[in-house]
Amino acid sequence: SGNFFLIAGPCVVESRENVFEVAEKVIAITEKLKIPYIFKSSFKKANRTKGGSFMGIGDEKALEILAEVKAKFGVPVVTDIHESQDAAFAARYVDILQIPAFLCRQTDLLVAAANTGKVVNVKKGQFLSGEAMKFAVDKIVDAGNKKVMLTDRGNSFGYTDLVVDYRNIPAMKETGVPVIMDCTHSLQQPNQASGVSGGKPELIETIAKAAIAVGADGLFIETHPNPSIAKSDGANMLKLDYLEDLMVKLVRLRQAL
Amino acid sequence: SGNFFLIAGPCVVESRENVFEVAEKVIAITEKLKIPYIFKSSFKKANRTKGGSFMGIGDEKALEILAEVKAKFGVPVVTDIHESQDAAFAARYVDILQIPAFLCRQTDLLVAAANTGKVVNVKKGQFLSGEAMKFAVDKIVDAGNKKVMLTDRGNSFGYTDLVVDYRNIPAMKETGVPVIMDCTHSLQQPNQASGVSGGKPELIETIAKAAIAVGADGLFIETHPNPSIAKSDGANMLKLDYLEDLMVKLVRLRQAL
Amino acid sequence: SGNFFLIAGPCVVESRENVFEVAEKVIAITEKLKIPYIFKSSFKKANRTKGGSFMGIGDEKALEILAEVKAKFGVPVVTDIHESQDAAFAARYVDILQIPAFLCRQTDLLVAAANTGKVVNVKKGQFLSGEAMKFAVDKIVDAGNKKVMLTDRGNSFGYTDLVVDYRNIPAMKETGVPVIMDCTHSLQQPNQASGVSGGKPELIETIAKAAIAVGADGLFIETHPNPSIAKSDGANMLKLDYLEDLMVKLVRLRQAL
Amino acid sequence: SGNFFLIAGPCVVESRENVFEVAEKVIAITEKLKIPYIFKSSFKKANRTKGGSFMGIGDEKALEILAEVKAKFGVPVVTDIHESQDAAFAARYVDILQIPAFLCRQTDLLVAAANTGKVVNVKKGQFLSGEAMKFAVDKIVDAGNKKVMLTDRGNSFGYTDLVVDYRNIPAMKETGVPVIMDCTHSLQQPNQASGVSGGKPELIETIAKAAIAVGADGLFIETHPNPSIAKSDGANMLKLDYLEDLMVKLVRLRQAL
Repeated sequence: SGNFFLIAGPCVVESRENVFEVAEKVIAITEKLKIPYIFKSSFKKANRTKGGSFMGIGDEKALEILAEVKAKFGVPVVTDIHESQDAAFAARYVDILQIPAFLCRQTDLLVAAANTGKVVNVKKGQFLSGEAMKFAVDKIVDAGNKKVMLTDRGNSFGYTDLVVDYRNIPAMKETGVPVIMDCTHSLQQPNQASGVSGGKPELIETIAKAAIAVGADGLFIETHPNPSIAKSDGANMLKLDYLEDLMVKLVRLRQAL
Repeated sequence: SGNFFLIAGPCVVESRENVFEVAEKVIAITEKLKIPYIFKSSFKKANRTKGGSFMGIGDEKALEILAEVKAKFGVPVVTDIHESQDAAFAARYVDILQIPAFLCRQTDLLVAAANTGKVVNVKKGQFLSGEAMKFAVDKIVDAGNKKVMLTDRGNSFGYTDLVVDYRNIPAMKETGVPVIMDCTHSLQQPNQASGVSGGKPELIETIAKAAIAVGADGLFIETHPNPSIAKSDGANMLKLDYLEDLMVKLVRLRQAL
Repeated sequence: SGNFFLIAGPCVVESRENVFEVAEKVIAITEKLKIPYIFKSSFKKANRTKGGSFMGIGDEKALEILAEVKAKFGVPVVTDIHESQDAAFAARYVDILQIPAFLCRQTDLLVAAANTGKVVNVKKGQFLSGEAMKFAVDKIVDAGNKKVMLTDRGNSFGYTDLVVDYRNIPAMKETGVPVIMDCTHSLQQPNQASGVSGGKPELIETIAKAAIAVGADGLFIETHPNPSIAKSDGANMLKLDYLEDLMVKLVRLRQAL
Repeated sequence: SGNFFLIAGPCVVESRENVFEVAEKVIAITEKLKIPYIFKSSFKKANRTKGGSFMGIGDEKALEILAEVKAKFGVPVVTDIHESQDAAFAARYVDILQIPAFLCRQTDLLVAAANTGKVVNVKKGQFLSGEAMKFAVDKIVDAGNKKVMLTDRGNSFGYTDLVVDYRNIPAMKETGVPVIMDCTHSLQQPNQASGVSGGKPELIETIAKAAIAVGADGLFIETHPNPSIAKSDGANMLKLDYLEDLMVKLVRLRQAL
């Protein structure tokens, strides 16, 4: 459609109700605006700051709900994996395997994901340059899988802040794969004394507009009907009610490029 | 006009010929595109990395050329000052006094600039948050001058790189003054072993598009007919021939906001 | 002995000859200077920047060589693991399991390491504060294993540099576990265009002295008879011939605390 | 004496009583420990974050108090200047002119300081590498003054934190001039919402010990009998009562090098 695509959903699978509510609402918006849509949710949060934080409702149970989204709504589904043994397992349920930013250099994990034949979406490490992501792409392509995407989620900027370097969008596009801006995790405030990351969701529009302007192919936005009660990343998710208005502005911007 | 405004010109006054050539060409472009234009050039480079680098053709001689630009072409002119004693002196020739980023916390300098009654454009220090720039605005307003502008030129990111944090545009707009993105100095590569800053001019378009998308009121772009022979900042200025094409894209983007 | 302890060895198990040569020489030095010594080498390099870089001689073969070091020389041995399935496997051969910095937030990996009952040495992520490492310690202790150590290897500082923040040594000591400075990886220069990290081994002494002065309990130093032909991290390892002289200086410094 | 030297005093001249109290107590300590001592205080705070913050008791009045310290106690005195016109003026009262970190690239200021014939102590900008400080040294030496010192006060690390990079000590020593660690400003926490910098004085010992260990020639420590009521930088100054104990530890460390 000449439009950008959207990867969106709640940070983690909390319940079938929550997942279906989000999917349904986002699909209504993206169909109206002709935005290709991919549903995202984690089946497991494997790298919470603190032990004791919510890690999921059970791996299989969560993945089955994701497969239901795919079956019922006909949209592709993405979830993230953390160890190579997860790759084939998660691939039975979803279309796209996502590699978390901290893990983007783990060769075994990238190769295991590549070997499933699924699309692999690699998040850029908070410590890596956009240029260096070509080595991640190469590891997957060399394993025989050309279906790669790259996602920026900001760089470490002191201990308690992240900064998005928009030079990384054109740098990553040099690899020839679709490049996505993660508009919610980029606004995390890590290393809080509480062990719970903070956030600045009021800046999601700023992060997203700049990304579209510089040529991002897709956007990644975690969204929840009520972020204040969400079980993970509540501090930076977009309230679902705000999504349509944001998308309208971004589609208009995209058309001006 | 609903458009953004442009501050542009060669980094330093090299010669009347160079200044007039740039002014004439930029005016032709900005008139066609209805972009309000302010001519910029430094009369003196007071903080070169290395002693021995070109510092100017003589303060008065350079300022007189700037006054000629103003008289002949009818465009406002901006130049930067470095010590409080320069404020009244430079104010005799130009419309806007610019405070360099390294000096944005020097109270005497801000107050001296404020006292001239001219517009004061303060560049955000590479070490300051957008929020902290409200204190610079306050210092000028408290001295009785409400004509303030703020300009972002990136943040220190390791020793040899800068990163633009686009969250600073809305943060600085909170002060109520016009906010400008400096698209060329943001791409400097400081602390080079040679004592001459490097640059990445091929990314000017990226920096500028993101700035317009997130609501910058103006852009600051140093430009030269032939940056490779320029006497200062040759590594990051925009080749003058590329300016029109860039402005066309940016005007279109601005209209989509 | 009131002394600091030393974790040292070649980055990766290249061959039995290489491993034995390093172990023998380091043991001679540390016995003379009464420095408790732990032999370190990776059995597998799982997160090289580039695919195609040397990853090891074979997992079991490498681990068996490590077990031989332990048996023959009577020194404890440490190696790093990357996925939870490696934990029990590696624990059959070594005394200490090391968690790489990129992986220090992976709960499953920390818990799997904890469950082996071995000592777990967690490297501080380049993106984490010293204070936040208490959550890593907690994850291991909560799994029932109190034998934890923490190691600093620097923080991201722009894309191509790391900086060691010595405030992290006392911050991590607050957790009550031994704190180690990794003097060689702290000097890596990541994100090089070549896909091979650079380094600054001439600064190892600077990094080590500051660490001892601020109270580090141990030092981690990768060393090789001839770093220029090493199969991994050649750019930052210490030439083995320089080790004794360095240790003499550091022991003297330690005694003055 | 083979010892390091100490630059210390209250951040700003608050009153004769305060200045004399600090001078007297520091002199007693440094004479006992054979630490060469230079008294430091600012006659004017020219770059406070906020307008309205205390800037001083009057330039001449403050400088006269500094001259009295010199006359009465026989110790050299240092103060900082901010514009070139201050150089000759301040030089009439003090022995050493200090260039603030934000201003270390201002050529006119460095040259004006050099021209007084006094020692010039240049603080490293929070945005500069240690290597790049050689250009500051060159500017002063080229103006005919070889009496230069360099002081590190940390690097920008995100907006609200600084990090000391100890690699800069040997890098600056390459220029052949004495190198000093500023142990109190290095612990500032800039860009606070309040417009008043925060601090972490409990870490002064950590910063100082690491500096001595890596070869710093001198230490710079702001100290006050009661930092909580100080008129500037109260958040990071050392309580005067803690100075002797700290110096004893550092002298012992220095002797072990």
